[in-house]
Amino acid sequence: MDASAYARNCPSRQILDRIGDTWSVLVVMMLADGPQRYTALSRRIEGVSPKMLTQTLRGLERDGLIGRTVHAEVPPRVDYELTTLGRSLLSLVGALENWAETHIDDVQAAREAYDNPGVKISA
Amino acid sequence: MDASAYARNCPSRQILDRIGDTWSVLVVMMLADGPQRYTALSRRIEGVSPKMLTQTLRGLERDGLIGRTVHAEVPPRVDYELTTLGRSLLSLVGALENWAETHIDDVQAAREAYDNPGVKISA
Repeated sequence: MDASAYARNCPSRQILDRIGDTWSVLVVMMLADGPQRYTALSRRIEGVSPKMLTQTLRGLERDGLIGRTVHAEVPPRVDYELTTLGRSLLSLVGALENWAETHIDDVQAAREAYDNPGVKISA
Repeated sequence: MDASAYARNCPSRQILDRIGDTWSVLVVMMLADGPQRYTALSRRIEGVSPKMLTQTLRGLERDGLIGRTVHAEVPPRVDYELTTLGRSLLSLVGALENWAETHIDDVQAAREAYDNPGVKISA
């Protein structure tokens, strides 16, 4: 395991920030099946504000992970889709999501025990 | 891919937040080789404030990912180490880090192109 991500200005730490960002991860997951319109993304990702979604999409586009296509319609339609680089993230994001869903019960139990010291919680 | 992480109150989204947190990821990586003292962690992870490191360690402990051992010395020595649950994260964190280090050039190039529209950047 390379130690360079520990260094403050290392660009790989910036990338870690991006791919560790929950909204970014959710957008990448949503685009796994193909292009999506902005409105579909905002509807399906609960709790994301328009400002935050726009900021997330811009960040992903800037990092070369998603592409944006503006269709000449009235009103204009904007589609987002994963680039080849973005697609390379999918297995990683799937593994992350899979870990979260597999170990959710363990983490929840640990939190309960931590928040209630002295209370015996049966496994 | 399960869609439940899109839902606002789904606990797996909270876990995604935790394992997507850069400081948490760096701490987990640092503990891969064995227990570490607080002072060693704070020295090796550049740019983390004492407040942020303490908060990160508490969050990881609450989630059952790390354990804390207080040694009866003067001054007291505190060691942190990964639990079995925390160890299960290592392959994932390694893959994340590996992706970041492999694709760093692509992401940097995409950022430059995005920030300088109209300027032709040779690949």
